[in-house]
Amino acid sequence: MTGQTPRPPSPLIGFDPTAFRWADVEGQTYKLARGDERGMGWKGVTRHTLASPAILPVAFETRYFELEPGGYSSLEKHRHVHFVIVLRGSGLALIGDRVHEIEPFDAVYVPPLAPHRWLNAGQEPFGFLCTVDGERDQPSALDEDEWERLRSDPLTAPHVF
Amino acid sequence: MTGQTPRPPSPLIGFDPTAFRWADVEGQTYKLARGDERGMGWKGVTRHTLASPAILPVAFETRYFELEPGGYSSLEKHRHVHFVIVLRGSGLALIGDRVHEIEPFDAVYVPPLAPHRWLNAGQEPFGFLCTVDGERDQPSALDEDEWERLRSDPLTAPHVF
Repeated sequence: MTGQTPRPPSPLIGFDPTAFRWADVEGQTYKLARGDERGMGWKGVTRHTLASPAILPVAFETRYFELEPGGYSSLEKHRHVHFVIVLRGSGLALIGDRVHEIEPFDAVYVPPLAPHRWLNAGQEPFGFLCTVDGERDQPSALDEDEWERLRSDPLTAPHVF
Repeated sequence: MTGQTPRPPSPLIGFDPTAFRWADVEGQTYKLARGDERGMGWKGVTRHTLASPAILPVAFETRYFELEPGGYSSLEKHRHVHFVIVLRGSGLALIGDRVHEIEPFDAVYVPPLAPHRWLNAGQEPFGFLCTVDGERDQPSALDEDEWERLRSDPLTAPHVF
């Protein structure tokens, strides 16, 4: 259609259900190794940033995290809130002093300063969207009291390492 | 377990796959009627707010919108960005001067001031998550030039009413 203004780039980030991945969204390292701090080890986690202030004029970030079977995130706390919606598989969410089994489209939030860890105890990949404020604090390891309390509670103890 | 501090309320918002709804999240009216403004009519849309500054200490809002078969949202524009991920069914996204067919887990963003409308041309409910900044501007109707341009383009004309 000669003479027309070129159409702008597509705002569509297409999803490939076979690969369970989005077009041109690369997997990133979940986080820098901090495995020498108590509970800050992690295993088999990838991060895919779908929306962030670096990409779009927004103040939030939406990331897709995927945990391999046997994978787990660091056991940490921070002031900023996580808002999570499961997309794939099933997993465990240790939040505060509870452990929740979560499945597709379950929504979960992590309150400020609640210790938390995500674990994949299943046979399939466990994937979820996690939205956070763009401006946010860094995660911290648990303090001694928090660690001991979760270690002494039979509900949470298996996930505190 | 006498003597223990009571556990806090659950941060889990459980999903019911049969109803395709979240526990204790009520459907709300999509928006106030502005059907007397050009393009601002809508049909068969519900809104379910999953996260917002009114509920959680966050600066964003994540809403689930669902359009019945034949449903459509208002044709509007605003400075704030929509970040959408489809959860259910399939639909059309008119964004700027393009129309995208979108399906589960496709991600789409609406750039600032791009005219946009969501439509369900299928036989099943079409549902998607939409995250926005909590602080944002109000939607406006299209101006005369925008309206005429979309009306004169055969790609977009069927969705401009």
